Amino acid sequence: MSLEDLRNQKKGSYESVQDESDITYLNNGIFANNPDTFKEDDRIEEEKHLRNVLNTFLHYEIYSQNMNNKKKIDFKKLPENHKKLFPDVLNKLNTIDEYIKINTHFIKLMIQDYVPYDSDSTKLFQGRSLKQLEVDKVRSTLKQFARDWSDQGKIERDETYTPIINALLDFYKDIPEEERGELNILVPGAGLGRLAYDITKLGFSTQGNEFSFYMLLGSNFILNCMSEPKQFRIYPWIHSLSNSVKVEDQLESIDIPDVLPGNIPKNTNFSMVAGDFIEVYKTPSYKEYWDGIVTCFFMDTAKNILEYIELISQILKPNAVWINLGPLLYHFEDMYSEPSIELSLEEFFEAIKMFGFTIKESKRIETTYCCNQKSMLKYKYNCSFFVAVKNPDNSNNI
Amino acid sequence: MSLEDLRNQKKGSYESVQDESDITYLNNGIFANNPDTFKEDDRIEEEKHLRNVLNTFLHYEIYSQNMNNKKKIDFKKLPENHKKLFPDVLNKLNTIDEYIKINTHFIKLMIQDYVPYDSDSTKLFQGRSLKQLEVDKVRSTLKQFARDWSDQGKIERDETYTPIINALLDFYKDIPEEERGELNILVPGAGLGRLAYDITKLGFSTQGNEFSFYMLLGSNFILNCMSEPKQFRIYPWIHSLSNSVKVEDQLESIDIPDVLPGNIPKNTNFSMVAGDFIEVYKTPSYKEYWDGIVTCFFMDTAKNILEYIELISQILKPNAVWINLGPLLYHFEDMYSEPSIELSLEEFFEAIKMFGFTIKESKRIETTYCCNQKSMLKYKYNCSFFVAVKNPDNSNNI
Repeated sequence: MSLEDLRNQKKGSYESVQDESDITYLNNGIFANNPDTFKEDDRIEEEKHLRNVLNTFLHYEIYSQNMNNKKKIDFKKLPENHKKLFPDVLNKLNTIDEYIKINTHFIKLMIQDYVPYDSDSTKLFQGRSLKQLEVDKVRSTLKQFARDWSDQGKIERDETYTPIINALLDFYKDIPEEERGELNILVPGAGLGRLAYDITKLGFSTQGNEFSFYMLLGSNFILNCMSEPKQFRIYPWIHSLSNSVKVEDQLESIDIPDVLPGNIPKNTNFSMVAGDFIEVYKTPSYKEYWDGIVTCFFMDTAKNILEYIELISQILKPNAVWINLGPLLYHFEDMYSEPSIELSLEEFFEAIKMFGFTIKESKRIETTYCCNQKSMLKYKYNCSFFVAVKNPDNSNNI
Repeated sequence: MSLEDLRNQKKGSYESVQDESDITYLNNGIFANNPDTFKEDDRIEEEKHLRNVLNTFLHYEIYSQNMNNKKKIDFKKLPENHKKLFPDVLNKLNTIDEYIKINTHFIKLMIQDYVPYDSDSTKLFQGRSLKQLEVDKVRSTLKQFARDWSDQGKIERDETYTPIINALLDFYKDIPEEERGELNILVPGAGLGRLAYDITKLGFSTQGNEFSFYMLLGSNFILNCMSEPKQFRIYPWIHSLSNSVKVEDQLESIDIPDVLPGNIPKNTNFSMVAGDFIEVYKTPSYKEYWDGIVTCFFMDTAKNILEYIELISQILKPNAVWINLGPLLYHFEDMYSEPSIELSLEEFFEAIKMFGFTIKESKRIETTYCCNQKSMLKYKYNCSFFVAVKNPDNSNNI
């Protein structure tokens, strides 16, 4: 299925291997203000962007093999007395080559419906220089599968998704389970869709929103194209051999998905919308539409976090709930070509109140993000977690 | 004092504001195999390298002001209803401008003896593009001052230097304090010199070794040019506004040095040697020379860690001690143009034994490195700490 097909059918489901699937993918245009005003320039820009992402995915194999090959050369150049100490190193690197092939097979299946041409990556990359930063996004996507859809990711999901879900259940504890489908919950920055999916499984009608094509291609594949649990084995940790206690830690596989997506409760809708959060939801039809908004590691992806808070306030119903968990690692702070506003946590809270929210609960939760739990280095985020309710009287101070 | 002066006088002390100073700076040539064979090509390469570092230091002010200016522009471009929420943002950014000037003054004093020309950075940088990666090294140097020479750095020093020093004292507990000056302790990767200095203060004769000109310029300034404790106030955290709980956290100063370096115990030598660890210490005169080698966040700076272990084994006396603390974040792993060998921790330990060491103690210590302790994001290293003794019978298995 091409991007063109995807946009034209707007509310159509992807074809799914799961008969019971009712996961709808909407595409309002990544760069479009809204689907009705989607312009030719936007279409061209979007297709160029998608092609770059697909090229990068296809580039993964060559780039990874080159890097692994370099490790072999470096090892072979060692003095003889060093080489003989670790006779198994080349075996390990050959194993990594095999695992790169397995990861590549998985990636190619994931993107196959979107590659409208011969997927020979050597052809695609003629004249294109290797950029580590781009290939890092493919590696991050593989790690994101570990976080969202593997047994190993349960630690991070328990630390982050569980408190969010418990707060949502608590907030709507007076609504009977069979009526939860009437409550519409939005998950901006949905990534590979696990949090949105878990909320759906509890009976809430849920919409995930995501801007990144890396995540959109991944979430479509995992949500719509699986036929059994643990259908795929991939190797997300083979690209860094630093900070490992054991060689096996570097070679560890994950089996995905840990659960087979599907069996959405009756009267419950689940959809994923592609596009920029502001562009998609600023349309008047979403004004005071949502019964809950859940943001997890999302708010700091804003170029202007105040715009995010303001829009969340506008599209929530009065008395509806906003649950947030995340740090304030502003994604655009160091990018000279993009605007960025960096609030401290205290300023962030001031802004939340000024945009018409009352904070009901607030605490700090320490967690990692897409972390190999066995690594000697962990990035620990001391996240802000809060439950905020939109004031009924529109009493914001703006 | 120029680099040329520095090399020519080889064993001369830097002029110091401290009368009692006996800190000797040796320069064996950063790129030289040894000082006696220091070639013209090496000299040219080294001077080019030093000039680049000095240029980057001088570049700090313009680059930082540009980045801060961008933040002002981004703020001014906000919608009016957003701008009025945080009327103090421009004040904060103006304050950061002041702090950049204060940091710049400190940096210029630090490098002034090495800048043989007009230090007008606008002239120096004609035709040179801004590279964030390089300026990051200046920022890292400022943070390194926090780690090594501020009250705020005590947390990290207690977590890392204290167990190392305690192990060294324990290993040589039978040597009377007044005889410790006869024991020669080497600290490769000495950074800004605090660990080497603290070991010296206990009476051991200590030599720090460092390759980076950023660190060498910094350690010379702090060790030789201070006249009182807390002489300088600098602002190491102003360059990232992400992950701050309070605005004040971003603006926090450090007063350096927390202690005034000097008053080295009698019969104790303290020196710092510039140059690559392998190049400096592979000369025959260092064979079985050292009574102790202390490596802290150093081993993973190797292109070939086996070469480091082998050399440590060669230059330690029989029955002498090697104390190590650090992760395995191999610095060259992702650099395509440089060789790199990545051992797991288990393989690292195998290698230590094979090069003729017996491990007497081993544990894991969790710590951070140059971390703003108030940040919502911390890189936590679950370090390996060990005490190893060189076998007396040269019983290595190589």
